[in-house]
Amino acid sequence: MFADPSTLTHEQVEEGTALAPRFDAHGLITAVAQEAGSGRVLMVAHMNAEALQRTIETGEVHYYSRSRKALWKKGETSGEVQKLIALATDCDQDVVLLTVEQTGRGAACHTGRKSCFYRVLKDGKLENTGEPRLFDPAAVYHR
Amino acid sequence: MFADPSTLTHEQVEEGTALAPRFDAHGLITAVAQEAGSGRVLMVAHMNAEALQRTIETGEVHYYSRSRKALWKKGETSGEVQKLIALATDCDQDVVLLTVEQTGRGAACHTGRKSCFYRVLKDGKLENTGEPRLFDPAAVYHR
Repeated sequence: MFADPSTLTHEQVEEGTALAPRFDAHGLITAVAQEAGSGRVLMVAHMNAEALQRTIETGEVHYYSRSRKALWKKGETSGEVQKLIALATDCDQDVVLLTVEQTGRGAACHTGRKSCFYRVLKDGKLENTGEPRLFDPAAVYHR
Repeated sequence: MFADPSTLTHEQVEEGTALAPRFDAHGLITAVAQEAGSGRVLMVAHMNAEALQRTIETGEVHYYSRSRKALWKKGETSGEVQKLIALATDCDQDVVLLTVEQTGRGAACHTGRKSCFYRVLKDGKLENTGEPRLFDPAAVYHR
């Protein structure tokens, strides 16, 4: 389904029309999920070829879990499915930027918050931004 | 300067106040640069500990170039310095989200465009969004 970047020229990778993801040595690319409308960066995860292909085919975002070493449909456990609105790639095609609609309770993060980025650095310490939990992770993940 | 995540509990990494970047086997974390105001994702690159430390200390964004295997102050060649407005980390602290002001001509991408994400997938092909080049890369990088 995808072009192999090693068969393309530098110009084709950067300016061409072929989606040619530059998977790393582990077969992964970085995926950034940004919420449509708000523009908030919700999370950053990884995709292998299968996750990328399923995301494009189904319109629902799939990642690859490095800890579980398995394909991971976002929301399969939590119900927080991400609907794909648009998919962009960067100049050297080693990152995809997903514009998504975060369904369910609107929480992309496994901690129950909308975004994984709920702490900012201030005077050398992380400060919680006070982002509310939209679900109780203990109840959702049965931990 | 940073806490070692291996000395912290899961709870401390996810909810604590210590910046404890989870550098990968190559000593790198992923860094996403988002433009202040517009919310546009400009680029995704990597940082080693030194790049992260210099970014925080100087307020100007530094990355680590994997191709050149060297610390890379953004804009050192192009003049397109990124001023750090805020730095957030994600739940498991393997990504930093940088809110930046893109100075110079406003181009984060080495192709001369504001953002590296100038192509979106449409019907299986990448379509250029028509983002203008704010500088001529051949002139800037003397290639």
